[in-house]
Amino acid sequence: MTTKIILDCDPGHDDAIALLLAHGNPNIELVAVTTVHGNQTIEKVTRNALAVATVAGITGVPFAAGAHRPLVRTPEVAESIHGDSGLDGPVLPEPAFEAEDRHAVDLIIDTIMSSEPGTITLVPTGALTNIALAVRKEPRIAERVKEVVLMGGGYHVGNWSAAAEFNIVIDPEAAHIVFNEKWKLTMVGLDLTHQALATPDVVAAIAAVDTKPARFVLELLEFFAESYKDAQGFDHPPVHDPCAVALVIDPSVMSVVRVPLDIELTGSLTLGMTVADFRSAAPEDCTTYAATDLDHAKFWSLIVDALERIGDPV
Amino acid sequence: MTTKIILDCDPGHDDAIALLLAHGNPNIELVAVTTVHGNQTIEKVTRNALAVATVAGITGVPFAAGAHRPLVRTPEVAESIHGDSGLDGPVLPEPAFEAEDRHAVDLIIDTIMSSEPGTITLVPTGALTNIALAVRKEPRIAERVKEVVLMGGGYHVGNWSAAAEFNIVIDPEAAHIVFNEKWKLTMVGLDLTHQALATPDVVAAIAAVDTKPARFVLELLEFFAESYKDAQGFDHPPVHDPCAVALVIDPSVMSVVRVPLDIELTGSLTLGMTVADFRSAAPEDCTTYAATDLDHAKFWSLIVDALERIGDPV
Amino acid sequence: MTTKIILDCDPGHDDAIALLLAHGNPNIELVAVTTVHGNQTIEKVTRNALAVATVAGITGVPFAAGAHRPLVRTPEVAESIHGDSGLDGPVLPEPAFEAEDRHAVDLIIDTIMSSEPGTITLVPTGALTNIALAVRKEPRIAERVKEVVLMGGGYHVGNWSAAAEFNIVIDPEAAHIVFNEKWKLTMVGLDLTHQALATPDVVAAIAAVDTKPARFVLELLEFFAESYKDAQGFDHPPVHDPCAVALVIDPSVMSVVRVPLDIELTGSLTLGMTVADFRSAAPEDCTTYAATDLDHAKFWSLIVDALERIGDPV
Amino acid sequence: MTTKIILDCDPGHDDAIALLLAHGNPNIELVAVTTVHGNQTIEKVTRNALAVATVAGITGVPFAAGAHRPLVRTPEVAESIHGDSGLDGPVLPEPAFEAEDRHAVDLIIDTIMSSEPGTITLVPTGALTNIALAVRKEPRIAERVKEVVLMGGGYHVGNWSAAAEFNIVIDPEAAHIVFNEKWKLTMVGLDLTHQALATPDVVAAIAAVDTKPARFVLELLEFFAESYKDAQGFDHPPVHDPCAVALVIDPSVMSVVRVPLDIELTGSLTLGMTVADFRSAAPEDCTTYAATDLDHAKFWSLIVDALERIGDPV
Ligand SMILES: [Ca+2]
Ligand SMILES: [Ca+2]
Ligand SMILES: [Ca+2]
Ligand SMILES: [Ca+2]
Repeated sequence: MTTKIILDCDPGHDDAIALLLAHGNPNIELVAVTTVHGNQTIEKVTRNALAVATVAGITGVPFAAGAHRPLVRTPEVAESIHGDSGLDGPVLPEPAFEAEDRHAVDLIIDTIMSSEPGTITLVPTGALTNIALAVRKEPRIAERVKEVVLMGGGYHVGNWSAAAEFNIVIDPEAAHIVFNEKWKLTMVGLDLTHQALATPDVVAAIAAVDTKPARFVLELLEFFAESYKDAQGFDHPPVHDPCAVALVIDPSVMSVVRVPLDIELTGSLTLGMTVADFRSAAPEDCTTYAATDLDHAKFWSLIVDALERIGDPV
Repeated sequence: MTTKIILDCDPGHDDAIALLLAHGNPNIELVAVTTVHGNQTIEKVTRNALAVATVAGITGVPFAAGAHRPLVRTPEVAESIHGDSGLDGPVLPEPAFEAEDRHAVDLIIDTIMSSEPGTITLVPTGALTNIALAVRKEPRIAERVKEVVLMGGGYHVGNWSAAAEFNIVIDPEAAHIVFNEKWKLTMVGLDLTHQALATPDVVAAIAAVDTKPARFVLELLEFFAESYKDAQGFDHPPVHDPCAVALVIDPSVMSVVRVPLDIELTGSLTLGMTVADFRSAAPEDCTTYAATDLDHAKFWSLIVDALERIGDPV
Repeated sequence: MTTKIILDCDPGHDDAIALLLAHGNPNIELVAVTTVHGNQTIEKVTRNALAVATVAGITGVPFAAGAHRPLVRTPEVAESIHGDSGLDGPVLPEPAFEAEDRHAVDLIIDTIMSSEPGTITLVPTGALTNIALAVRKEPRIAERVKEVVLMGGGYHVGNWSAAAEFNIVIDPEAAHIVFNEKWKLTMVGLDLTHQALATPDVVAAIAAVDTKPARFVLELLEFFAESYKDAQGFDHPPVHDPCAVALVIDPSVMSVVRVPLDIELTGSLTLGMTVADFRSAAPEDCTTYAATDLDHAKFWSLIVDALERIGDPV
Repeated sequence: MTTKIILDCDPGHDDAIALLLAHGNPNIELVAVTTVHGNQTIEKVTRNALAVATVAGITGVPFAAGAHRPLVRTPEVAESIHGDSGLDGPVLPEPAFEAEDRHAVDLIIDTIMSSEPGTITLVPTGALTNIALAVRKEPRIAERVKEVVLMGGGYHVGNWSAAAEFNIVIDPEAAHIVFNEKWKLTMVGLDLTHQALATPDVVAAIAAVDTKPARFVLELLEFFAESYKDAQGFDHPPVHDPCAVALVIDPSVMSVVRVPLDIELTGSLTLGMTVADFRSAAPEDCTTYAATDLDHAKFWSLIVDALERIGDPV
């Protein structure tokens, strides 16, 4: 049985791989792709999303651009990690199609409201601005989605500050909105994604696929490895965003624990921290979950499998 | 020359009078009315807006309901001031027409984007949630409106806390968004509106109009007077919202000073305060203004005049 | 009847004048002088205090140095107003005596605890660090002092930020401690002291005294006038600190209103604001007061009178 | 070689055991004991400290009472853990001696300033109010102590809130002062102390000592076990405070990592959190350390050894 997802992303090297995974995996039906400011400006990440779709041969899926900036905070981009284009490394093809005129927020709302209740999974892998705007504009989506599985945050790990992760801290008010809605929400945060390292065996396995999309991924990983080495001292780059897609595909790829999660909005040192309360068992009405342990081999085999299925699109 | 306005309101006794003033005054063309949570729930204030329009004989103007809650904070209503219906006092007629299906945010965006640049004045008299959502969804409206003239805040006066006013403090993040946009923004705050008291002579002048809408206003003021007496100790009620409309009609009705304004989002005692910096002359690029002194007689004569022009709608 | 005061100060031009007023006025018995970081470092303001005492011929009063920095915040000094020495302008004499070895906090505590209950008035004219440390070390002083009359804060006026005054904002945690203790506390803030301008007639009256201390004051005012002109655009400098002493001498020199006061500790725009709640009459248990209107002539005649009484000390 | 320590505590069951360990261990010279509000009021914890000293036969060590409340926050006690007396469980003897008249802050300062530089280790096991007041009153102690080894905080674990530990969160401003001073500071936090569980084998080993002090400890642990079971769901109680003393005795009893630490003062969810920055290697000038892994057997053998050495005091 396939799961229908809306991928809300800011490509971004790892977003690109998340998109390829969602497209290539047979258990996922990609019903819409929306873009949001974050790794780079909305113009750049939207162009990147379309370019990646072109590389992957994605057709017939609506793409729409969304929020150009955070709700409240001063905009920031992650140039130290993703470069000036937001997807530095490979040469990007001219996109084969365009984004819709419709705003991402409306594409999200329309898709959810016109689908059967409980059938759409939201997979945000960037700042949560679009999702926050959507649920404030149309509150009924909170009960109509199946669930939200997002990459962002971390219960014990930060990257953009000692206590906060980039996707959350660049729009903490949006994150507060999304984490406090009624939907089931699973945080695939840095605690998990720092296990999703593109180690040499992983790189070799992807190289062995030997298609244009696989070579594209290799170029992404090559640039990403250097960025993470230089900016944050990683030996092998953590490939965050496909982890969220992987959890939708196969829950056995990682462990998940039910735990109250909330977003710190006023901390001087902890702004944008995803505060988890592990002090006792989560209460009955708790709808938030956090991913803890990754099956590294299973995760990367999903990526390789998706690339093999995608093959070489015409 | 008339000014086109979008009235974004939460009726609310003073919102109702603002709507009557905007409808009855010949210098104002009311191009849209949008509603927002605040004095009561979005359902109640929307019904109230339609009922007031019915009393006033407003036709041909699109009405649309907007945000049902603040961006981030826990929802609050002002039942102590406006009662359970949000418009307690008069018996409300069945609305003669319905709100559009379109969301208020889209009505605001569509109206501004389809009008000539620099022709639409936004007049918010409730929480700023709709305006914030609109400018985040469609950033181009910030340069396309003529200006924003809002009722809310206060540079030296609070009502919902020692330092903050209701419209701002119930959605301070929305206010932060709106006050920090590029548009010209004038704050008609409590410093000004606490001068707009419905004194006995004012009540007598409205009574002398002797129409159904005027009697409706009298019933509103009667209830409002009791609320403000009981809840905040006022001898005569301050009628806030029509002050913003009055400034659009006739700048000579009040003094306005250019001053940097910003919204406090993290204060323990000052959350939602509209912080004005009066320490020196406003810098050249300052686009925020605050109303200071009201011409009480001129203000109320605008209200009476509008009621006379409205007469008794069929 | 004389009032015994402890002057806790950071001279500072206006602190120097406050010290001269306290010394020269017959209704004040100066029982101790303590110094605190603020306008300059603790070393500089202590030396300044001793130098001013030497100019004024103060003998037999214990002086002690106190806190070298705020409780929590990064230290700041007001060099833009008081210069590198903290008392730029006049040539300062070598102090004729030294500060005690005892810490200011202990001098404050010992003085209060060894005096009759209800006889000592605390007059802080700098950061509230010493007073906060004293009442935390010896809580019984809160009930044993007569009252606290301080220069600092402002209910509608800031100087170091849009909403906050220097003495408070440089150690807001200390201010929070002091404003929330049980003692009667009167805030002589910027609302009041910006009325205490050293206008030309004032300068002329002081010049007419024609003593060494009076000439010293003239040199202080000359430098102070330039600082306030350059840094904050004042035509005539506001002479803050002696206002607090003046209120102790003669309550008729200014109007005072009872109003709840508290200190904002977490505001992004309002850190260190002295938040006054004027919304309704102060509750019965309110022990905080704020000065509102100054009798300018009466205030300055107290200064001139004190200088005349001091004459030319040997 | 023995290390001289000042134990600043709020007994408290685990403080009592820390005191016994410090007294019984031959590598520690207890040069002063100071008390601070926390687990109970200053009166109760001071009486408890004297009672424990009486049980342990401690003589010739000055005891002094300190701060009765936090610097800024509303006082709280930990009655759910330590009971109404602060040391519920055993019958407490009448203290055989009294606390000094001197304030704890002065005892701390005098002890440090009259000892050779670099010889005194501060071991706080309660709120940091006394230590903060001491270093603000006498800044020279920051360079004169050997180091600070404290129980409090936690880099990934909270108990009084999701993110904060009791000792820190009840006086976060004091903690901010202490964590930001120049001294070497080691945080023995909940991450470590939740490993110091009084398991049945530990209880049996203490029972085997079979002295009055050992039976006293057993009664403490019995009550503590029930409290921790009821209030926080622990199977065996974590015995926090002696861990800090144990680290002073023998660094091999736990692993310690150098990491920047700071205290969150403005967080809504994270107030009082000890924020550790593990993102990269600590910079050269970092003087803060955090304990990570406990050698459970070695730790408890230190306790048993100390009880054996104490024997049955006359
Ligand atoms: Ca991403
Ligand atoms: Ca309104
Ligand atoms: Ca001063
Ligand atoms: Ca303790």
